[in-house]
Amino acid sequence: MKEDRRDYSKGELKLSDLQGDPLDILQEWVNKAKSNELDPTAFVLSTSVDGQPNSRVVLLKEIRDGELVFFTNYNSSKGRELAQNPKVSLNFFFPSDERQIRILGTAAKVSESESDDYFYSRPYESQIGAVVSDQSATLESRASLDDAYEAALKLEQNPKRPENWGGYAITPFQIEFWQGRPSRLHDRFQFSLIEGNWEVKRLYP
Amino acid sequence: MKEDRRDYSKGELKLSDLQGDPLDILQEWVNKAKSNELDPTAFVLSTSVDGQPNSRVVLLKEIRDGELVFFTNYNSSKGRELAQNPKVSLNFFFPSDERQIRILGTAAKVSESESDDYFYSRPYESQIGAVVSDQSATLESRASLDDAYEAALKLEQNPKRPENWGGYAITPFQIEFWQGRPSRLHDRFQFSLIEGNWEVKRLYP
Repeated sequence: MKEDRRDYSKGELKLSDLQGDPLDILQEWVNKAKSNELDPTAFVLSTSVDGQPNSRVVLLKEIRDGELVFFTNYNSSKGRELAQNPKVSLNFFFPSDERQIRILGTAAKVSESESDDYFYSRPYESQIGAVVSDQSATLESRASLDDAYEAALKLEQNPKRPENWGGYAITPFQIEFWQGRPSRLHDRFQFSLIEGNWEVKRLYP
Repeated sequence: MKEDRRDYSKGELKLSDLQGDPLDILQEWVNKAKSNELDPTAFVLSTSVDGQPNSRVVLLKEIRDGELVFFTNYNSSKGRELAQNPKVSLNFFFPSDERQIRILGTAAKVSESESDDYFYSRPYESQIGAVVSDQSATLESRASLDDAYEAALKLEQNPKRPENWGGYAITPFQIEFWQGRPSRLHDRFQFSLIEGNWEVKRLYP
């Protein structure tokens, strides 16, 4: 394990590569990752309550109005933690492109109509999955979940979005773009939102 | 982006698959990931200061004595944040195996001799990289970093480990193993350290 390392040599990152809105650059990096990552929209979302961080993978569903949108069960661990503290960090890692994006921001629930729109666009089976899962609660047996799912499949032809299921929009105030380089001398550029404008600086690797 | 989803169907996870020490299971999952992930030892480390989480990718270097070890610059953002609050979360994501491991724990510096041992085992160029990088500080230009690196390559035949470079060992108190399943009905098992013993329960997906 100690010997598991590789030199990153696929690219370099210059300030001239990062012109424009950092969320547009993020969208470009995600689009690029679609050619070689299985889950190009996956990112690690971290919350924090009483000084204890907590992290899980979620899928980015949209970038709009300068915000990043994902959906979940509001009663899940992340939902309960966000209700206590909306401050979050995000990490996108694209090993094939040897790239990483680090974000700091704040999460807020989206409107019910936005949650509706996305919920009803999901595959029917995923809608049923959301209806039957009491996310993050203790589950006594897999069989009881499977039974509830099979029963709901028969009963609910047009499942309604559960009230505790919906979206969050993350407003970022810091975004770092990281490109791996040989000998651990990586290229890092950090955007910070200062009085409404994005300012950028290069960081030591 | 909203349509970017896939059904996870590679495997299922049963309690009988998770017998023994959860850190041994973690080691098995990392070993398995070596066959199809570019960075199988990579995980997202999240810290938190004043309620603001912060996340970045680091490489796991060893599992020993019930702890997970990685190395960094103690003056980096993560080092400064860990000095203020040692509580951390970790996330390993293996898209090929459709698996995720989520960990909560506490970080502490390893001994100087352990940091020495690892530092001097690294490739010479990485040692020099560590010597010349004032990690996370603002860097005025790539050229100044490259110049310092080239100069150090000539000067330092046997670089000394910088005093501000070394390891952390993370002691976990909660470890979740996650296996993706169809229709978002994933298998999740959470180990919690209770009075010195690991207890495990299944969670709703």
